[in-house]
Amino acid sequence: MPLITSRENPHIKAAVRLRNAAAERCASGKFFLEGFRLCADACGSGYAPEELFLTPAAREKYQTAPLERAAAQVFEITETVAQKLGDTQHPQGVFAVCGMKPSSLPGSPTNPQIRWGGLARGVPLRYIALENLQDPGNLGAVARTAEALGLAGLIIGNGCDPWHPKALRASMGALLRLPVIRTDDLPGALRSSGLPCYAAVPDRGAASVLACDFTRGGILAVGSEAEGLSEEAIAACTCAVTVPMPGRAESLNAAAAATILMWEMVR
Amino acid sequence: MPLITSRENPHIKAAVRLRNAAAERCASGKFFLEGFRLCADACGSGYAPEELFLTPAAREKYQTAPLERAAAQVFEITETVAQKLGDTQHPQGVFAVCGMKPSSLPGSPTNPQIRWGGLARGVPLRYIALENLQDPGNLGAVARTAEALGLAGLIIGNGCDPWHPKALRASMGALLRLPVIRTDDLPGALRSSGLPCYAAVPDRGAASVLACDFTRGGILAVGSEAEGLSEEAIAACTCAVTVPMPGRAESLNAAAAATILMWEMVR
Repeated sequence: MPLITSRENPHIKAAVRLRNAAAERCASGKFFLEGFRLCADACGSGYAPEELFLTPAAREKYQTAPLERAAAQVFEITETVAQKLGDTQHPQGVFAVCGMKPSSLPGSPTNPQIRWGGLARGVPLRYIALENLQDPGNLGAVARTAEALGLAGLIIGNGCDPWHPKALRASMGALLRLPVIRTDDLPGALRSSGLPCYAAVPDRGAASVLACDFTRGGILAVGSEAEGLSEEAIAACTCAVTVPMPGRAESLNAAAAATILMWEMVR
Repeated sequence: MPLITSRENPHIKAAVRLRNAAAERCASGKFFLEGFRLCADACGSGYAPEELFLTPAAREKYQTAPLERAAAQVFEITETVAQKLGDTQHPQGVFAVCGMKPSSLPGSPTNPQIRWGGLARGVPLRYIALENLQDPGNLGAVARTAEALGLAGLIIGNGCDPWHPKALRASMGALLRLPVIRTDDLPGALRSSGLPCYAAVPDRGAASVLACDFTRGGILAVGSEAEGLSEEAIAACTCAVTVPMPGRAESLNAAAAATILMWEMVR
Protein backbone atom coordinates (compact mmCIF):
# COMPACT_ATOMS: atom_id res chain seq x y z
CA MET A 1 0.00 0.00 0.00
CA PRO A 2 1.59 3.33 -1.05
CA LEU A 3 2.33 5.70 1.83
CA ILE A 4 1.63 9.43 1.50
CA THR A 5 3.56 11.64 3.90
CA SER A 6 3.34 14.99 2.11
CA ARG A 7 0.41 17.37 2.38
CA GLU A 8 1.38 18.54 -1.10
CA ASN A 9 0.95 15.09 -2.68
CA PRO A 10 -1.17 15.47 -5.86
CA HIS A 11 -3.74 12.87 -4.68
CA ILE A 12 -4.20 14.81 -1.45
CA LYS A 13 -4.46 18.16 -3.19
CA ALA A 14 -7.02 16.77 -5.64
CA ALA A 15 -9.07 15.32 -2.76
CA VAL A 16 -9.03 18.66 -0.91
CA ARG A 17 -10.22 20.41 -4.06
CA LEU A 18 -13.13 17.94 -4.30
CA ARG A 19 -13.92 18.60 -0.64
CA ASN A 20 -13.89 22.38 -1.02
CA ALA A 21 -15.29 23.17 -4.45
CA ALA A 22 -18.66 22.29 -5.91
CA ALA A 23 -17.35 23.26 -9.35
CA GLU A 24 -14.58 20.67 -9.01
CA ARG A 25 -17.09 17.98 -8.03
CA CYS A 26 -19.39 18.92 -10.88
CA ALA A 27 -16.61 18.95 -13.48
CA SER A 28 -15.06 15.65 -12.41
CA GLY A 29 -18.19 13.72 -11.42
CA LYS A 30 -16.41 12.76 -8.19
CA PHE A 31 -16.95 13.62 -4.55
CA PHE A 32 -15.05 13.42 -1.28
CA LEU A 33 -16.10 11.58 1.87
CA GLU A 34 -14.77 11.77 5.41
CA GLY A 35 -15.37 9.30 8.21
CA PHE A 36 -15.61 5.54 8.49
CA ARG A 37 -19.40 5.41 8.71
CA LEU A 38 -19.98 7.51 5.56
CA CYS A 39 -17.31 5.61 3.59
CA ALA A 40 -18.93 2.32 4.61
CA ASP A 41 -22.37 3.67 3.67
CA ALA A 42 -21.01 4.67 0.28
CA CYS A 43 -19.60 1.17 -0.33
CA GLY A 44 -22.86 -0.40 0.81
CA SER A 45 -24.78 1.77 -1.65
CA GLY A 46 -22.66 0.94 -4.66
CA TYR A 47 -20.22 3.85 -4.59
CA ALA A 48 -16.92 1.97 -4.71
CA PRO A 49 -14.11 4.35 -3.67
CA GLU A 50 -11.74 5.29 -6.47
CA GLU A 51 -9.27 6.32 -3.79
CA LEU A 52 -9.26 5.40 -0.13
CA PHE A 53 -6.99 7.18 2.37
CA LEU A 54 -6.36 5.57 5.77
CA THR A 55 -4.13 6.35 8.74
CA PRO A 56 -2.52 3.35 10.48
CA ALA A 57 -4.56 4.21 13.60
CA ALA A 58 -7.80 4.10 11.60
CA ARG A 59 -6.88 0.72 10.11
CA GLU A 60 -6.50 -0.58 13.66
CA LYS A 61 -9.63 1.05 15.05
CA TYR A 62 -12.16 0.43 12.26
CA GLN A 63 -13.10 -2.58 10.16
CA THR A 64 -11.54 -1.12 7.03
CA ALA A 65 -10.87 -4.42 5.24
CA PRO A 66 -14.15 -4.39 3.22
CA LEU A 67 -13.47 -0.79 2.21
CA GLU A 68 -9.95 -1.66 1.15
CA ARG A 69 -11.21 -4.55 -0.96
CA ALA A 70 -13.82 -2.33 -2.65
CA ALA A 71 -11.47 0.57 -3.39
CA ALA A 72 -9.59 0.87 -6.67
CA GLN A 73 -6.60 2.46 -4.89
CA VAL A 74 -5.72 2.49 -1.20
CA PHE A 75 -3.20 4.89 0.34
CA GLU A 76 -1.79 4.92 3.82
CA ILE A 77 -1.48 8.49 5.11
CA THR A 78 0.21 10.09 8.09
CA GLU A 79 -1.71 11.97 10.80
CA THR A 80 -0.41 15.26 9.36
CA VAL A 81 -1.91 14.42 5.99
CA ALA A 82 -5.16 13.36 7.71
CA GLN A 83 -5.29 16.79 9.37
CA LYS A 84 -5.11 18.36 5.93
CA LEU A 85 -7.85 16.12 4.48
CA GLY A 86 -10.07 16.39 7.54
CA ASP A 87 -12.90 18.90 7.74
CA THR A 88 -13.29 18.16 11.45
CA GLN A 89 -10.95 18.89 14.32
CA HIS A 90 -10.22 15.25 15.17
CA PRO A 91 -10.46 13.34 11.90
CA GLN A 92 -11.03 9.60 12.14
CA GLY A 93 -8.39 9.07 9.47
CA VAL A 94 -10.75 7.51 6.91
CA PHE A 95 -11.33 9.38 3.64
CA ALA A 96 -12.50 8.41 0.19
CA VAL A 97 -12.94 9.83 -3.28
CA CYS A 98 -15.91 8.27 -5.06
CA GLY A 99 -17.49 8.69 -8.48
CA MET A 100 -21.08 9.90 -8.67
CA LYS A 101 -23.54 7.42 -10.11
CA PRO A 102 -24.66 8.18 -13.67
CA SER A 103 -28.22 8.70 -12.43
CA SER A 104 -26.94 11.36 -10.09
CA LEU A 105 -25.03 13.36 -12.64
CA PRO A 106 -26.40 16.70 -13.71
CA GLY A 107 -28.23 16.52 -16.98
CA SER A 108 -29.91 13.15 -16.47
CA PRO A 109 -33.38 14.20 -15.47
CA THR A 110 -34.72 10.72 -14.98
CA ASN A 111 -33.34 7.58 -13.49
CA PRO A 112 -34.31 4.24 -14.95
CA GLN A 113 -33.95 2.70 -11.51
CA ILE A 114 -36.80 4.84 -10.24
CA ARG A 115 -40.28 3.71 -11.05
CA TRP A 116 -41.94 7.03 -11.62
CA GLY A 117 -45.59 7.28 -10.85
CA GLY A 118 -48.12 4.73 -9.86
CA LEU A 119 -47.51 2.22 -7.15
CA ALA A 120 -44.53 0.09 -6.18
CA ARG A 121 -45.82 -3.13 -4.69
CA GLY A 122 -49.08 -1.38 -3.87
CA VAL A 123 -47.41 1.47 -1.97
CA PRO A 124 -47.81 4.98 -3.39
CA LEU A 125 -44.42 6.54 -4.13
CA ARG A 126 -43.50 9.78 -2.44
CA TYR A 127 -40.55 11.98 -3.31
CA ILE A 128 -39.15 15.26 -2.14
CA ALA A 129 -37.82 17.72 -4.71
CA LEU A 130 -35.45 20.47 -3.63
CA GLU A 131 -34.55 23.67 -5.44
CA ASN A 132 -31.85 26.14 -4.40
CA LEU A 133 -31.62 24.80 -0.86
CA GLN A 134 -28.36 26.53 -0.17
CA ASP A 135 -27.41 25.42 3.32
CA PRO A 136 -25.83 21.98 2.89
CA GLY A 137 -26.76 21.20 6.51
CA ASN A 138 -30.43 21.76 5.66
CA LEU A 139 -30.14 19.62 2.54
CA GLY A 140 -28.59 16.78 4.55
CA ALA A 141 -31.15 17.06 7.34
CA VAL A 142 -34.03 16.93 4.85
CA ALA A 143 -32.53 13.84 3.20
CA ARG A 144 -32.15 12.17 6.59
CA THR A 145 -35.78 12.88 7.46
CA ALA A 146 -36.94 11.73 4.02
CA GLU A 147 -35.23 8.39 4.57
CA ALA A 148 -36.60 8.00 8.11
CA LEU A 149 -40.13 8.69 6.89
CA GLY A 150 -39.80 6.17 4.09
CA LEU A 151 -39.81 8.46 1.05
CA ALA A 152 -38.78 6.82 -2.21
CA GLY A 153 -36.06 9.31 -3.14
CA LEU A 154 -34.89 12.87 -3.68
CA ILE A 155 -35.08 14.98 -6.80
CA ILE A 156 -32.43 17.65 -6.66
CA GLY A 157 -32.63 20.72 -8.84
CA ASN A 158 -30.41 23.71 -9.42
CA GLY A 159 -28.61 25.34 -6.54
CA CYS A 160 -28.39 22.23 -4.35
CA ASP A 161 -25.20 20.24 -3.89
CA PRO A 162 -25.84 16.76 -2.46
CA TRP A 163 -22.10 16.02 -2.59
CA HIS A 164 -21.12 18.83 -0.24
CA PRO A 165 -19.25 17.25 2.71
CA LYS A 166 -21.57 18.98 5.20
CA ALA A 167 -24.67 17.74 3.38
CA LEU A 168 -23.35 14.17 3.35
CA ARG A 169 -22.49 14.38 7.05
CA ALA A 170 -25.82 15.94 8.10
CA SER A 171 -27.68 13.30 6.10
CA MET A 172 -25.97 10.53 8.11
CA GLY A 173 -25.44 8.78 4.79
CA ALA A 174 -29.06 9.07 3.64
CA LEU A 175 -27.86 10.97 0.54
CA LEU A 176 -25.81 7.89 -0.34
CA ARG A 177 -28.54 5.35 0.41
CA LEU A 178 -31.61 7.05 -1.09
CA PRO A 179 -32.06 7.28 -4.85
CA VAL A 180 -31.04 10.82 -5.81
CA ILE A 181 -32.06 12.25 -9.16
CA ARG A 182 -30.25 15.39 -10.22
CA THR A 183 -31.73 17.66 -12.82
CA ASP A 184 -31.02 21.08 -14.25
CA ASP A 185 -34.68 21.38 -15.18
CA LEU A 186 -36.74 20.76 -12.07
CA PRO A 187 -39.99 22.13 -13.56
CA GLY A 188 -39.57 19.79 -16.53
CA ALA A 189 -38.85 16.82 -14.27
CA LEU A 190 -41.94 17.59 -12.18
CA ARG A 191 -44.15 17.85 -15.24
CA SER A 192 -42.81 14.67 -16.83
CA SER A 193 -43.12 12.63 -13.64
CA GLY A 194 -46.82 11.99 -14.08
CA LEU A 195 -47.20 12.24 -10.30
CA PRO A 196 -49.21 14.80 -8.36
CA CYS A 197 -46.75 17.60 -7.46
CA TYR A 198 -47.17 19.79 -4.39
CA ALA A 199 -45.37 23.13 -4.18
CA ALA A 200 -44.53 24.18 -0.61
CA VAL A 201 -45.22 27.90 -0.23
CA PRO A 202 -45.44 30.18 2.80
CA ASP A 203 -48.49 31.91 1.32
CA ARG A 204 -51.38 31.80 3.77
CA GLY A 205 -53.74 31.84 0.82
CA ALA A 206 -52.53 28.44 -0.42
CA ALA A 207 -54.28 25.19 0.44
CA SER A 208 -53.56 23.98 3.95
CA VAL A 209 -51.56 20.79 4.02
CA LEU A 210 -54.33 19.46 6.26
CA ALA A 211 -56.72 19.64 3.32
CA CYS A 212 -54.45 17.68 0.95
CA ASP A 213 -55.00 14.10 -0.03
CA PHE A 214 -51.63 12.41 -0.40
CA THR A 215 -52.96 8.88 -0.77
CA ARG A 216 -51.87 8.67 -4.42
CA GLY A 217 -48.31 9.60 -3.45
CA GLY A 218 -46.55 12.36 -5.31
CA ILE A 219 -43.71 14.84 -5.21
CA LEU A 220 -43.33 17.56 -2.60
CA ALA A 221 -41.28 20.48 -3.95
CA VAL A 222 -39.46 22.77 -1.51
CA GLY A 223 -37.47 25.87 -2.41
CA SER A 224 -34.69 27.97 -1.00
CA GLU A 225 -34.45 29.25 2.56
CA ALA A 226 -34.68 32.88 1.46
CA GLU A 227 -36.70 32.90 -1.74
CA GLY A 228 -38.81 29.75 -1.71
CA LEU A 229 -39.61 27.92 -4.95
CA SER A 230 -39.17 29.59 -8.33
CA GLU A 231 -42.28 30.69 -10.21
CA GLU A 232 -41.51 28.04 -12.83
CA ALA A 233 -41.39 25.24 -10.27
CA ILE A 234 -44.63 26.37 -8.64
CA ALA A 235 -46.31 26.55 -12.06
CA ALA A 236 -45.16 22.98 -12.82
CA CYS A 237 -46.90 21.67 -9.69
CA THR A 238 -50.45 20.38 -9.41
CA CYS A 239 -51.16 22.59 -6.42
CA ALA A 240 -49.54 24.80 -3.80
CA VAL A 241 -49.66 23.74 -0.16
CA THR A 242 -48.75 25.52 3.04
CA VAL A 243 -48.31 24.74 6.71
CA PRO A 244 -50.98 26.65 8.61
CA MET A 245 -49.22 28.64 11.34
CA PRO A 246 -51.01 29.97 14.37
CA GLY A 247 -47.82 31.80 15.37
CA ARG A 248 -45.66 34.29 13.56
CA ALA A 249 -46.09 34.35 9.80
CA GLU A 250 -43.43 33.06 7.41
CA SER A 251 -41.19 31.95 10.18
CA LEU A 252 -40.78 28.25 9.50
CA ASN A 253 -37.40 27.58 7.97
CA ALA A 254 -37.18 25.50 4.79
CA ALA A 255 -36.05 22.33 6.59
CA ALA A 256 -38.81 22.57 9.22
CA ALA A 257 -41.48 23.19 6.57
CA ALA A 258 -40.15 20.25 4.54
CA THR A 259 -40.21 18.05 7.66
CA ILE A 260 -43.84 18.86 8.49
CA LEU A 261 -44.96 18.47 4.87
CA MET A 262 -43.14 15.15 4.39
CA TRP A 263 -44.67 13.93 7.64
CA GLU A 264 -48.14 14.87 6.38
CA MET A 265 -47.45 13.02 3.11
CA VAL A 266 -46.78 9.75 4.93
CA ARG A 267 -48.88 10.26 8.07
CA MET B 1 -20.69 59.00 21.40
CA PRO B 2 -17.35 57.43 22.35
CA LEU B 3 -15.38 56.02 19.43
CA ILE B 4 -13.56 52.69 19.71
CA THR B 5 -10.75 52.18 17.22
CA SER B 6 -8.74 49.44 18.95
CA ARG B 7 -9.52 45.75 18.73
CA GLU B 8 -7.90 45.48 22.17
CA ASN B 9 -10.37 47.89 23.80
CA PRO B 10 -11.66 46.30 27.05
CA HIS B 11 -15.33 46.68 25.99
CA ILE B 12 -14.57 44.87 22.74
CA LYS B 13 -12.59 42.12 24.43
CA ALA B 14 -15.38 41.60 26.99
CA ALA B 15 -17.98 41.41 24.20
CA VAL B 16 -15.90 38.85 22.30
CA ARG B 17 -15.61 36.75 25.46
CA LEU B 18 -19.41 36.83 25.81
CA ARG B 19 -19.72 35.80 22.17
CA ASN B 20 -17.30 32.89 22.50
CA ALA B 21 -17.75 31.43 25.96
CA ALA B 22 -20.89 29.98 27.54
CA ALA B 23 -19.17 30.10 30.94
CA GLU B 24 -18.66 33.84 30.55
CA ARG B 25 -22.33 34.34 29.67
CA CYS B 26 -23.44 32.18 32.56
CA ALA B 27 -21.19 33.92 35.11
CA SER B 28 -22.10 37.45 34.02
CA GLY B 29 -25.77 36.97 33.15
CA LYS B 30 -25.09 38.81 29.89
CA PHE B 31 -25.10 37.77 26.26
CA PHE B 32 -23.87 39.09 22.93
CA LEU B 33 -25.93 39.84 19.84
CA GLU B 34 -24.91 40.49 16.25
CA GLY B 35 -27.01 42.03 13.52
CA PHE B 36 -29.59 44.77 13.29
CA ARG B 37 -32.62 42.48 13.20
CA LEU B 38 -31.62 40.52 16.32
CA CYS B 39 -30.70 43.67 18.25
CA ALA B 40 -34.06 45.20 17.33
CA ASP B 41 -35.84 42.00 18.34
CA ALA B 42 -34.05 42.11 21.69
CA CYS B 43 -35.15 45.71 22.31
CA GLY B 44 -38.70 44.86 21.28
CA SER B 45 -38.73 41.99 23.76
CA GLY B 46 -37.52 44.00 26.73
CA TYR B 47 -33.81 43.27 26.53
CA ALA B 48 -32.42 46.82 26.59
CA PRO B 49 -28.77 46.74 25.43
CA GLU B 50 -26.25 47.53 28.13
CA GLU B 51 -23.77 48.27 25.37
CA LEU B 52 -24.48 48.95 21.72
CA PHE B 53 -21.67 48.98 19.12
CA LEU B 54 -22.32 50.60 15.73
CA THR B 55 -20.21 51.38 12.69
CA PRO B 56 -20.91 54.70 10.95
CA ALA B 57 -22.05 52.74 7.87
CA ALA B 58 -24.56 50.78 9.97
CA ARG B 59 -25.94 54.01 11.48
CA GLU B 60 -26.58 55.21 7.96
CA LYS B 61 -28.03 51.97 6.62
CA TYR B 62 -30.29 50.88 9.49
CA GLN B 63 -32.85 52.63 11.69
CA THR B 64 -30.61 52.52 14.75
CA ALA B 65 -32.12 55.50 16.55
CA PRO B 66 -34.56 53.43 18.69
CA LEU B 67 -31.72 51.07 19.61
CA GLU B 68 -29.50 53.99 20.58
CA ARG B 69 -32.24 55.44 22.78
CA ALA B 70 -32.81 52.09 24.50
CA ALA B 71 -29.13 51.33 25.12
CA ALA B 72 -27.38 52.30 28.33
CA GLN B 73 -24.12 52.94 26.45
CA VAL B 74 -23.53 53.45 22.74
CA PHE B 75 -20.12 53.17 21.08
CA GLU B 76 -19.13 53.99 17.55
CA ILE B 77 -16.69 51.41 16.20
CA THR B 78 -14.46 51.22 13.14
CA GLU B 79 -14.84 48.54 10.47
CA THR B 80 -11.72 46.83 11.81
CA VAL B 81 -13.30 46.55 15.24
CA ALA B 82 -16.53 45.31 13.64
CA GLN B 83 -14.53 42.56 11.93
CA LYS B 84 -13.29 41.46 15.34
CA LEU B 85 -16.78 41.49 16.91
CA GLY B 86 -18.43 39.85 13.91
CA ASP B 87 -19.02 36.13 13.76
CA THR B 88 -19.93 36.43 10.10
CA GLN B 89 -17.79 37.30 7.11
CA HIS B 90 -19.54 40.57 6.30
CA PRO B 91 -20.80 41.94 9.61
CA GLN B 92 -23.61 44.48 9.44
CA GLY B 93 -21.81 46.58 12.03
CA VAL B 94 -24.53 46.33 14.69
CA PHE B 95 -23.68 44.54 17.95
CA ALA B 96 -25.10 44.58 21.47
CA VAL B 97 -24.41 43.23 24.92
CA CYS B 98 -27.65 42.58 26.82
CA GLY B 99 -28.50 41.29 30.26
CA MET B 100 -30.51 38.08 30.55
CA LYS B 101 -33.94 38.46 32.10
CA PRO B 102 -34.22 37.18 35.67
CA SER B 103 -36.68 34.52 34.52
CA SER B 104 -34.09 33.27 32.11
CA LEU B 105 -31.27 32.94 34.58
CA PRO B 106 -30.20 29.48 35.62
CA GLY B 107 -31.65 28.49 38.96
CA SER B 108 -35.07 30.06 38.55
CA PRO B 109 -37.14 27.05 37.65
CA THR B 110 -40.39 28.91 37.21
CA ASN B 111 -41.38 32.18 35.71
CA PRO B 112 -44.23 34.16 37.24
CA GLN B 113 -45.00 35.58 33.80
CA ILE B 114 -45.89 32.11 32.57
CA ARG B 115 -49.28 30.81 33.50
CA TRP B 116 -48.47 27.19 34.07
CA GLY B 117 -51.18 24.68 33.38
CA GLY B 118 -54.78 25.10 32.50
CA LEU B 119 -55.91 27.40 29.76
CA ALA B 120 -55.00 30.93 28.74
CA ARG B 121 -58.08 32.58 27.26
CA GLY B 122 -59.51 29.14 26.57
CA VAL B 123 -56.44 27.97 24.62
CA PRO B 124 -54.49 25.03 26.03
CA LEU B 125 -50.86 25.96 26.65
CA ARG B 126 -48.14 24.03 24.92
CA TYR B 127 -44.45 24.19 25.68
CA ILE B 128 -41.34 22.52 24.44
CA ALA B 129 -38.68 21.46 26.95
CA LEU B 130 -35.14 20.81 25.77
CA GLU B 131 -32.37 18.91 27.52
CA ASN B 132 -28.74 18.69 26.39
CA LEU B 133 -29.52 19.85 22.86
CA GLN B 134 -25.91 20.54 22.05
CA ASP B 135 -25.98 21.98 18.57
CA PRO B 136 -26.91 25.65 18.97
CA GLY B 137 -28.22 25.64 15.40
CA ASN B 138 -30.69 22.89 16.33
CA LEU B 139 -31.74 24.77 19.46
CA GLY B 140 -32.39 27.93 17.46
CA ALA B 141 -34.26 26.06 14.72
CA VAL B 142 -36.51 24.37 17.29
CA ALA B 143 -37.26 27.73 18.93
CA ARG B 144 -38.11 29.25 15.56
CA THR B 145 -40.50 26.39 14.77
CA ALA B 146 -42.03 26.58 18.27
CA GLU B 147 -42.84 30.24 17.70
CA ALA B 148 -44.23 29.65 14.20
CA LEU B 149 -46.50 26.91 15.51
CA GLY B 150 -47.76 29.09 18.34
CA LEU B 151 -46.23 27.33 21.34
CA ALA B 152 -46.37 29.29 24.59
CA GLY B 153 -42.67 29.08 25.42
CA LEU B 154 -39.51 27.06 25.90
CA ILE B 155 -38.22 25.32 28.99
CA ILE B 156 -34.49 24.93 28.75
CA GLY B 157 -32.65 22.44 30.92
CA ASN B 158 -29.03 21.53 31.39
CA GLY B 159 -26.69 21.38 28.45
CA CYS B 160 -28.55 23.91 26.29
CA ASP B 161 -27.35 27.45 25.76
CA PRO B 162 -30.07 29.72 24.38
CA TRP B 163 -27.62 32.67 24.40
CA HIS B 164 -25.17 31.08 22.00
CA PRO B 165 -24.82 33.45 19.02
CA LYS B 166 -25.57 30.63 16.57
CA ALA B 167 -28.71 29.65 18.50
CA LEU B 168 -29.94 33.25 18.54
CA ARG B 169 -29.26 33.61 14.82
CA ALA B 170 -30.88 30.29 13.84
CA SER B 171 -33.93 31.19 15.92
CA MET B 172 -34.41 34.40 13.90
CA GLY B 173 -35.03 36.12 17.23
CA ALA B 174 -37.60 33.60 18.48
CA LEU B 175 -35.38 32.92 21.51
CA LEU B 176 -35.71 36.61 22.38
CA ARG B 177 -39.44 36.85 21.73
CA LEU B 178 -40.71 33.61 23.28
CA PRO B 179 -40.80 33.18 27.05
CA VAL B 180 -37.75 31.10 27.95
CA ILE B 181 -37.55 29.37 31.32
CA ARG B 182 -34.13 28.08 32.28
CA THR B 183 -33.78 25.43 34.90
CA ASP B 184 -31.02 23.24 36.27
CA ASP B 185 -33.64 20.71 37.30
CA LEU B 186 -35.72 19.86 34.25
CA PRO B 187 -37.33 16.75 35.81
CA GLY B 188 -38.41 18.87 38.81
CA ALA B 189 -39.78 21.60 36.55
CA LEU B 190 -41.74 19.04 34.53
CA ARG B 191 -43.22 17.46 37.66
CA SER B 192 -44.13 20.81 39.24
CA SER B 193 -45.75 22.17 36.06
CA GLY B 194 -49.00 20.33 36.63
CA LEU B 195 -49.23 19.86 32.85
CA PRO B 196 -49.23 16.58 30.94
CA CYS B 197 -45.60 15.95 29.93
CA TYR B 198 -44.62 13.96 26.86
CA ALA B 199 -41.13 12.49 26.58
CA ALA B 200 -39.91 12.19 22.98
CA VAL B 201 -38.11 8.86 22.58
CA PRO B 202 -36.91 6.92 19.53
CA ASP B 203 -38.15 3.67 21.08
CA ARG B 204 -40.52 1.91 18.71
CA GLY B 205 -42.27 0.42 21.74
CA ALA B 206 -43.43 3.84 22.98
CA ALA B 207 -46.86 5.24 22.18
CA SER B 208 -47.15 6.60 18.64
CA VAL B 209 -47.63 10.36 18.55
CA LEU B 210 -50.68 9.59 16.40
CA ALA B 211 -52.34 7.97 19.42
CA CYS B 212 -51.73 10.95 21.73
CA ASP B 213 -54.42 13.38 22.77
CA PHE B 214 -52.84 16.83 23.08
CA THR B 215 -56.11 18.72 23.52
CA ARG B 216 -55.30 19.61 27.13
CA GLY B 217 -51.96 21.13 26.06
CA GLY B 218 -48.81 20.12 27.85
CA ILE B 219 -45.05 19.99 27.63
CA LEU B 220 -43.11 18.09 25.00
CA ALA B 221 -39.65 17.13 26.25
CA VAL B 222 -36.85 16.47 23.74
CA GLY B 223 -33.33 15.32 24.57
CA SER B 224 -29.88 15.46 23.05
CA GLU B 225 -28.98 14.57 19.48
CA ALA B 226 -26.83 11.63 20.55
CA GLU B 227 -28.30 10.37 23.81
CA GLY B 228 -31.92 11.46 23.87
CA LEU B 229 -33.61 12.42 27.14
CA SER B 230 -32.14 11.44 30.49
CA GLU B 231 -33.79 8.63 32.43
CA GLU B 232 -34.81 11.19 35.08
CA ALA B 233 -36.55 13.43 32.55
CA ILE B 234 -38.38 10.48 30.98
CA ALA B 235 -39.49 9.34 34.44
CA ALA B 236 -40.82 12.84 35.21
CA CYS B 237 -43.09 12.73 32.15
CA THR B 238 -46.65 11.49 31.97
CA CYS B 239 -45.89 9.30 28.97
CA ALA B 240 -43.32 8.58 26.29
CA VAL B 241 -44.18 9.28 22.66
CA THR B 242 -42.44 8.45 19.43
CA VAL B 243 -42.68 9.30 15.75
CA PRO B 244 -43.57 6.10 13.89
CA MET B 245 -41.03 5.66 11.12
CA PRO B 246 -41.66 3.45 8.13
CA GLY B 247 -38.06 4.05 7.01
CA ARG B 248 -34.76 3.51 8.75
CA ALA B 249 -34.96 3.27 12.55
CA GLU B 250 -33.62 5.96 14.86
CA SER B 251 -32.69 8.17 12.02
CA LEU B 252 -34.71 11.30 12.72
CA ASN B 253 -32.47 13.97 14.19
CA ALA B 254 -33.54 15.76 17.37
CA ALA B 255 -34.70 18.90 15.56
CA ALA B 256 -36.75 16.95 13.01
CA ALA B 257 -38.36 14.81 15.72
CA ALA B 258 -39.15 17.95 17.74
CA THR B 259 -40.66 19.58 14.65
CA ILE B 260 -42.98 16.66 13.90
CA LEU B 261 -44.00 16.29 17.56
CA MET B 262 -44.68 20.02 18.02
CA TRP B 263 -46.72 19.97 14.84
CA GLU B 264 -48.78 17.05 16.16
CA MET B 265 -49.33 18.95 19.43
CA VAL B 266 -50.91 21.90 17.62
CA ARG B 267 -52.31 20.15 14.54
